[in-house]
Amino acid sequence: MKESEIEESNQLNLQFDKRGGLLPVVVQESETGDILMIASVNREAVDRTLETKKATFWSTSRNKLWVKGETSENTIWIDEILVDCDQDALVYKVRLEGDGVCHTKNKLGVHRKSCFYRSLNPDSKELTFLEK
Amino acid sequence: MKESEIEESNQLNLQFDKRGGLLPVVVQESETGDILMIASVNREAVDRTLETKKATFWSTSRNKLWVKGETSENTIWIDEILVDCDQDALVYKVRLEGDGVCHTKNKLGVHRKSCFYRSLNPDSKELTFLEK
Repeated sequence: MKESEIEESNQLNLQFDKRGGLLPVVVQESETGDILMIASVNREAVDRTLETKKATFWSTSRNKLWVKGETSENTIWIDEILVDCDQDALVYKVRLEGDGVCHTKNKLGVHRKSCFYRSLNPDSKELTFLEK
Repeated sequence: MKESEIEESNQLNLQFDKRGGLLPVVVQESETGDILMIASVNREAVDRTLETKKATFWSTSRNKLWVKGETSENTIWIDEILVDCDQDALVYKVRLEGDGVCHTKNKLGVHRKSCFYRSLNPDSKELTFLEK
């Protein structure tokens, strides 16, 4: 498939081969626009996500399919999937069930909603916690 | 550095080594929350971004530092940088100068604002263009 066909076509042709079998996916909360996490997907994870509407990834640390919420009750339900120009990156637009997607917990012992809970100060190069 | 220190510290310790020198970065428009693109950064790209406030990446296709807007006049100005729990992914919150970040153009011949201009239909598995 030519580059222009990948970019301007309505045919799905995700470029897994180009990226060693894994593509990055950004998980974004539909309601707020907050970015919750970045993960990886292989073809099987995308197919499973389309079938079940539950955000499914490929865990690069455990080398297995990873259905978010399977063990934590923090399921991520898919509203929409966006595909980029090169068809080598995805956005999952989602709604959360449970507290949050992050495996870390805040001071109250609750899973943080987003993995992006720190901001990088450009001057000091230190991290500032965004949570109250 | 221990995992808990990476997750709960205000010290910046980006995990480039863990990911072969490159981390994914999501570019998000501050004003709208729209996700514009996903790219890669190495340490040099992050340092340059912090210095210049211009979103800078590592081009994996050209194998060189890539200052967005250098050739296209579509500069991306940094408002804020977020770092995830594992310190192996970033969000650039930005404002755009110029039409958009995508190298593709819409029917009017204008660079698309976001690379994510198509939605994946879960039933037909075809792509729908989001632009009017």
